[in-house]
Amino acid sequence: MSNKKALKIAVIGGGSSYTPEIVEGFIKRYDEMPIRELWLVDIEAGKHKLEIVGELAKRMVQQAGLPIEVHLTLDRREAIAGADFVTTQMRVGLLEARKRDEHIPISHGVIGQETTGPGGMFKALRTVPVILDICKDIEELAPDAWLFNFTNPAGIVTEAVQKYSKVKTVGLCNSPINFYKFLAKEYGVTERDVLPEFVGINHLHWVTAAYVNGEDKLPELIGKGREYTASNVTAFDWDADFLSSLGAIPTYYLRYFYMTDKMLEDMKASMEKNGTRADVVSRVEAELFELYKDVNLKEKPKQLEQRGGAYYSEAAVNLMYSLYTDRRDIQTLNVRNGNIIDFLPEDASIEVNCVVTAQGPIPIPLQNVPAHVTGLLHAVKTYESLTIEAAITGDKGIALQALVHHPLVPSVSVAKTLLEEMLEANKEYLPNFFK
Amino acid sequence: MSNKKALKIAVIGGGSSYTPEIVEGFIKRYDEMPIRELWLVDIEAGKHKLEIVGELAKRMVQQAGLPIEVHLTLDRREAIAGADFVTTQMRVGLLEARKRDEHIPISHGVIGQETTGPGGMFKALRTVPVILDICKDIEELAPDAWLFNFTNPAGIVTEAVQKYSKVKTVGLCNSPINFYKFLAKEYGVTERDVLPEFVGINHLHWVTAAYVNGEDKLPELIGKGREYTASNVTAFDWDADFLSSLGAIPTYYLRYFYMTDKMLEDMKASMEKNGTRADVVSRVEAELFELYKDVNLKEKPKQLEQRGGAYYSEAAVNLMYSLYTDRRDIQTLNVRNGNIIDFLPEDASIEVNCVVTAQGPIPIPLQNVPAHVTGLLHAVKTYESLTIEAAITGDKGIALQALVHHPLVPSVSVAKTLLEEMLEANKEYLPNFFK
Amino acid sequence: MSNKKALKIAVIGGGSSYTPEIVEGFIKRYDEMPIRELWLVDIEAGKHKLEIVGELAKRMVQQAGLPIEVHLTLDRREAIAGADFVTTQMRVGLLEARKRDEHIPISHGVIGQETTGPGGMFKALRTVPVILDICKDIEELAPDAWLFNFTNPAGIVTEAVQKYSKVKTVGLCNSPINFYKFLAKEYGVTERDVLPEFVGINHLHWVTAAYVNGEDKLPELIGKGREYTASNVTAFDWDADFLSSLGAIPTYYLRYFYMTDKMLEDMKASMEKNGTRADVVSRVEAELFELYKDVNLKEKPKQLEQRGGAYYSEAAVNLMYSLYTDRRDIQTLNVRNGNIIDFLPEDASIEVNCVVTAQGPIPIPLQNVPAHVTGLLHAVKTYESLTIEAAITGDKGIALQALVHHPLVPSVSVAKTLLEEMLEANKEYLPNFFK
Amino acid sequence: MSNKKALKIAVIGGGSSYTPEIVEGFIKRYDEMPIRELWLVDIEAGKHKLEIVGELAKRMVQQAGLPIEVHLTLDRREAIAGADFVTTQMRVGLLEARKRDEHIPISHGVIGQETTGPGGMFKALRTVPVILDICKDIEELAPDAWLFNFTNPAGIVTEAVQKYSKVKTVGLCNSPINFYKFLAKEYGVTERDVLPEFVGINHLHWVTAAYVNGEDKLPELIGKGREYTASNVTAFDWDADFLSSLGAIPTYYLRYFYMTDKMLEDMKASMEKNGTRADVVSRVEAELFELYKDVNLKEKPKQLEQRGGAYYSEAAVNLMYSLYTDRRDIQTLNVRNGNIIDFLPEDASIEVNCVVTAQGPIPIPLQNVPAHVTGLLHAVKTYESLTIEAAITGDKGIALQALVHHPLVPSVSVAKTLLEEMLEANKEYLPNFFK
Repeated sequence: MSNKKALKIAVIGGGSSYTPEIVEGFIKRYDEMPIRELWLVDIEAGKHKLEIVGELAKRMVQQAGLPIEVHLTLDRREAIAGADFVTTQMRVGLLEARKRDEHIPISHGVIGQETTGPGGMFKALRTVPVILDICKDIEELAPDAWLFNFTNPAGIVTEAVQKYSKVKTVGLCNSPINFYKFLAKEYGVTERDVLPEFVGINHLHWVTAAYVNGEDKLPELIGKGREYTASNVTAFDWDADFLSSLGAIPTYYLRYFYMTDKMLEDMKASMEKNGTRADVVSRVEAELFELYKDVNLKEKPKQLEQRGGAYYSEAAVNLMYSLYTDRRDIQTLNVRNGNIIDFLPEDASIEVNCVVTAQGPIPIPLQNVPAHVTGLLHAVKTYESLTIEAAITGDKGIALQALVHHPLVPSVSVAKTLLEEMLEANKEYLPNFFK
Repeated sequence: MSNKKALKIAVIGGGSSYTPEIVEGFIKRYDEMPIRELWLVDIEAGKHKLEIVGELAKRMVQQAGLPIEVHLTLDRREAIAGADFVTTQMRVGLLEARKRDEHIPISHGVIGQETTGPGGMFKALRTVPVILDICKDIEELAPDAWLFNFTNPAGIVTEAVQKYSKVKTVGLCNSPINFYKFLAKEYGVTERDVLPEFVGINHLHWVTAAYVNGEDKLPELIGKGREYTASNVTAFDWDADFLSSLGAIPTYYLRYFYMTDKMLEDMKASMEKNGTRADVVSRVEAELFELYKDVNLKEKPKQLEQRGGAYYSEAAVNLMYSLYTDRRDIQTLNVRNGNIIDFLPEDASIEVNCVVTAQGPIPIPLQNVPAHVTGLLHAVKTYESLTIEAAITGDKGIALQALVHHPLVPSVSVAKTLLEEMLEANKEYLPNFFK
Repeated sequence: MSNKKALKIAVIGGGSSYTPEIVEGFIKRYDEMPIRELWLVDIEAGKHKLEIVGELAKRMVQQAGLPIEVHLTLDRREAIAGADFVTTQMRVGLLEARKRDEHIPISHGVIGQETTGPGGMFKALRTVPVILDICKDIEELAPDAWLFNFTNPAGIVTEAVQKYSKVKTVGLCNSPINFYKFLAKEYGVTERDVLPEFVGINHLHWVTAAYVNGEDKLPELIGKGREYTASNVTAFDWDADFLSSLGAIPTYYLRYFYMTDKMLEDMKASMEKNGTRADVVSRVEAELFELYKDVNLKEKPKQLEQRGGAYYSEAAVNLMYSLYTDRRDIQTLNVRNGNIIDFLPEDASIEVNCVVTAQGPIPIPLQNVPAHVTGLLHAVKTYESLTIEAAITGDKGIALQALVHHPLVPSVSVAKTLLEEMLEANKEYLPNFFK
Repeated sequence: MSNKKALKIAVIGGGSSYTPEIVEGFIKRYDEMPIRELWLVDIEAGKHKLEIVGELAKRMVQQAGLPIEVHLTLDRREAIAGADFVTTQMRVGLLEARKRDEHIPISHGVIGQETTGPGGMFKALRTVPVILDICKDIEELAPDAWLFNFTNPAGIVTEAVQKYSKVKTVGLCNSPINFYKFLAKEYGVTERDVLPEFVGINHLHWVTAAYVNGEDKLPELIGKGREYTASNVTAFDWDADFLSSLGAIPTYYLRYFYMTDKMLEDMKASMEKNGTRADVVSRVEAELFELYKDVNLKEKPKQLEQRGGAYYSEAAVNLMYSLYTDRRDIQTLNVRNGNIIDFLPEDASIEVNCVVTAQGPIPIPLQNVPAHVTGLLHAVKTYESLTIEAAITGDKGIALQALVHHPLVPSVSVAKTLLEEMLEANKEYLPNFFK
């Protein structure tokens, strides 16, 4: 990519409530990274939302006085053709499917969560074929484009693209950027002054060092019991003895593994009260779209931050900017493992610090890998890779093996029950399994 | 070791009810592998049993008309000095400790078992310092001797010896030899005609091929639902779909992992009825020693086979014989990993096929490693290695990490509770933790 | 392969002067491994030799009173169809080509030798396409057959088959078996009592241990300056200081690398006197065929042993026997590396100890790899793998890289000169390079 | 290291003719990286030079109007105590030793060069014990200091420090920075706009990609025959076919390996004409010190650039600056391998791109490793590691193995001759070999 030309961006799932975030990001960076065309594309079922959010995007650009063309379309190929960057933020089966991903496991006493365990598996089984379809379009119409994948389970989806297409891709999560921000705030410095080390995979990483101006503040942070967390995961406190012998700070998603009993109870309780997380999100979304409709709204509304994906678009715009300018800074991304985590397959996706050049992000060797967590990490990655294989082949046996060997699934018989019930419930989105 | 000289054997824990088995083995092989001296050694607390079983051993030798000298002693150093082979079969804390290893976890809803999970950890914490003490004697008094370790958890204990002493050691389990026998019987051939492939570690292996006269019968065995099992593990049937998608036969111990809920329920039920496995063994042992006392008994009594360690001594005598004669046959043993399982540390102990030369067993590269099980295998081995580190250092934090990351322990808080309660209960055997 | 049925053997290049050796081997082992059909196949140009040696083979079988059918044919497919074992002993371009392989390098001051360096490369470039053609027939007509490759450069040819066909193959060299025999003789024991360890690749291995009845005699052998060698490589003495600091015994072929100057001088001198090794072999062969014609000759003539390939057929028959009977003994063979030599590619061929089961030879982990030699070993293997790539693609650039990076080629300019001259000289046998 | 405080620098071998370069570097960067104290330390024999160059340094600082204290001392410990950075630029045995390193090999028909082959070995054998002695002082007196090693053979010396001391160290060579400059100049861009990839070890690397504003210009450069080189290595042209099939640009030092015959001839010829490179350097140095004496000289004289180490100090100051400011830019440095080059030992030093954080340089995974060169690279690294072992132990056998297996040494007998003669010639500097 030449670093001279103005850019074309395609946002798949452009009707998402997140879109104003990324539009704001483009506006802020316009001087250094000029966007020529922004294509918001969605499917027929999302047309109404696309129009609402698209009009808001246009108003935001106009308000900023910038010559960015905003296009709304249902024609994916038109949006992709010649794009420099393609982002995906989609939900195959919509929030209804998410409800099932959460509801069914919980009803069998298993964590129901859309990024890991049975819920994560089914979200992946629905999404992988769709994303690979999009990749075919990119291979044909924009072979030099970078695909940024935000779609959960981001680690699995990214790995699937890396294995089964030629598209250049990176997986993005807001959890790392949130830690940078937490750390900077904690020590009253800028984000550029901090450098945490992340070890692991998407939603299953550990922070193993936390440099602030070159000094490792991790022991201090662990001692203080200071922690970073997110609005969408219940923030039970970590046990102090556990953290200190772990010698690392687990991502908040690791509560599903380290506090399984408590988290499950909490899920059940809040399901009774508020419904699942999917139900909560439904309500938040409905409110957001009400706001978006207001023709006087010309900027990203504050309420969007509650939605749960804080700083997602900042992460994306940062990455674009580094690829565009060959910035060679360090960012925490989902990329192909290579030799970085030596016990995982080379073609597994991992979430670690990378130096971002114009050729793409290159993962940096890890300085501290806690021996304690290697088995857990290996087990979840195995589930992820098997899930991809199942999505591609439609092989129920492989899906069963993936579930059985996931640490949150208690036995073969529970795995079988969940598999049957969830396959049936997702039938219309799983043609590979029902040919 | 020259293959000419007659041998000196030292049996640590010689007062064990298993001793008649190994004596029988020596008698049967005497022509090819002449034993000159057999030293049965035990601790003060085991003196009475040592005398009973020792006298039986003498009667067995006399009955066979062989010039094997049987010595009974409480002086371990005397027994070890100049030995060619040392075997260990011991139980630090006796059956009382085993009861606690089983009882405490079950009372907190966790599998209570003396070879894995919390029970396995505490058996290891008690045993590792004692075995390393024995190793110091061997290093000094019989530096060329081979140490055969039968003591459970055999994988952990063997790895501890390999890491922390210079003694040449092999870990032995009867589970593989039972599979050879099962397979030979199933197809009506001799054991020499079969060659199963084992992948994994002690009590956590999968049979991934089952050659009978050069042909792989594994698919057939899986199809038939034929299985091998042992008297000491409840033999719930494997799910057919699970086995067939697994493409391997799990050892019966894997029921603790694949049928956790059912096994736990079964443990609870049979605990109410018969007490724990430790209680059952107590009763069987008492009966055996009654038999052993009979001066007319001059051979191994049939009832010993019920004891649960069938063919242990056959495995041991086989191995001795191959080391003694440089036989270069294939046996399934617990040895140092090296590069065999590439995602485990080189100094981990694994249980795989080895070719046994006079220099010791060399593990053979694996031909089939099911991707499905790599995470589970890695997780349990991590627990094992951390357990050794905890045993050596007496570091509670490491012990906590080991427990938390064991797949059968459901959460950090359960791990903490178990750790505290079991440390307290084992206080007198854990000087490293209570200095 | 069932171990019941009588076997069909196909010998490609059956008109070779070596054939009586292998026939003798089959006769000796007949009781344990009955051969039903022996097919000797050759090309049109070798018809005359095939008839001579074929008739001798028939007389040998008749003399032994065995019901082995000996077939002579020019139809390779007929010979291969349904065979259990196929062996190759061939020379594309005949001895004339070998003369050029030796002559041209020597004339440019470079070792000229048919198994390494420029000579080895060109022998490989001529042979690889032919052997892969044979493999296509085997894949089609005898998919379960084992292909034993004797054809030099055996390491390269074996690796090519492993990489570019599905045929099960093993590379065989007589150098290891000669060392077993040397060692047994030196210590007055049987070959079964010795176990040397070989580290390396074909014609570039080091013996790193030499067990005799379980005791390592290597230091003693190095001290004595005792060595094994072959009639076809000039046996200059090894320097004692060098051997002792090396801590291993190099194969006699390593003289080309460790005594390059002396060996080159010797080659030049003997070329003037006797012509190249090819010329010597020519004369020996002519004499052998004179003997073979004698209708009274009914056994392998003593003179064959001078030919340079002593015990080749013993090695082959040993291997067949172990595969046929699932013997699980240790033999030194050329097989796929896997993880055995960790710095070489997994699909490289290496020459190491293997345990031979009915499923094939499995290489055994090495116990001692001298750090000193790793670079040399890596360099020559790189040349070998590049040579295969050049043979397949006909890419001159890859051939140039292979030559430049071979340790016996002194510079890029010499490499270019040799490449041009030898390509031209071998034009008719290198269609891939001259399309 | 806090990024606030002013720095103390110790230059071991401060009397070197290079010193004005590094002083100039400190002056230029003063605003961003303030030096408080600059300690130039040398040995008694170098006192005179130290005074001359030290006075020049003081004049340079004064001219720049900066508050940098310049200290001259023969007391190494005083210089090191509390230093933030220590650099070494020294020559054990002075230029007389270098003459021998070059002269003796050439007289036996072998490349005589102070950074590889026999010459490099002996420079290393003399230097390693001295540098490790310095490291002991650093461990004691400045445990947080970074040691920058410029002393040749830089790869070996750096690896020795990494293996045998706790000092944080980086090896520096000017060859990479020269390539950055060559590339930037070639395309008329700034150095920040270029990013070449380096694969290999010190003085034996290949440039495998040459990004200019994100586009790989390597194929173009190879096609044009454009090359970078240095004044101290004769710049024979590379063969076009060779370069294009290599797919990489070799460092100019690789001419010793790829054009051995020509380079040797050239060395012999220029030795007759001008003496060895050591003689040339002697003359240049004498002239430089004449200039330095001039009290009117207050800046680095132009003539220093001819000396052969162009941009050495720029490289050093760049690195210091990045460590000091946690800059996280990419620099090409000699560091511990880890998993970067997977066929070399983890503790080998390699020369590759690193991202430089305040914690030190972290090597970045390589994107292109030409298979062709792996053997050569492995062979030379093996020689390097053995050389270190020989330097530490004084073991002649290991030194012999290192020489024999170096690609530029033609045979065991030449290696032995060289070893004996060079050991004798270096006797006074090799106490480990002559105890």
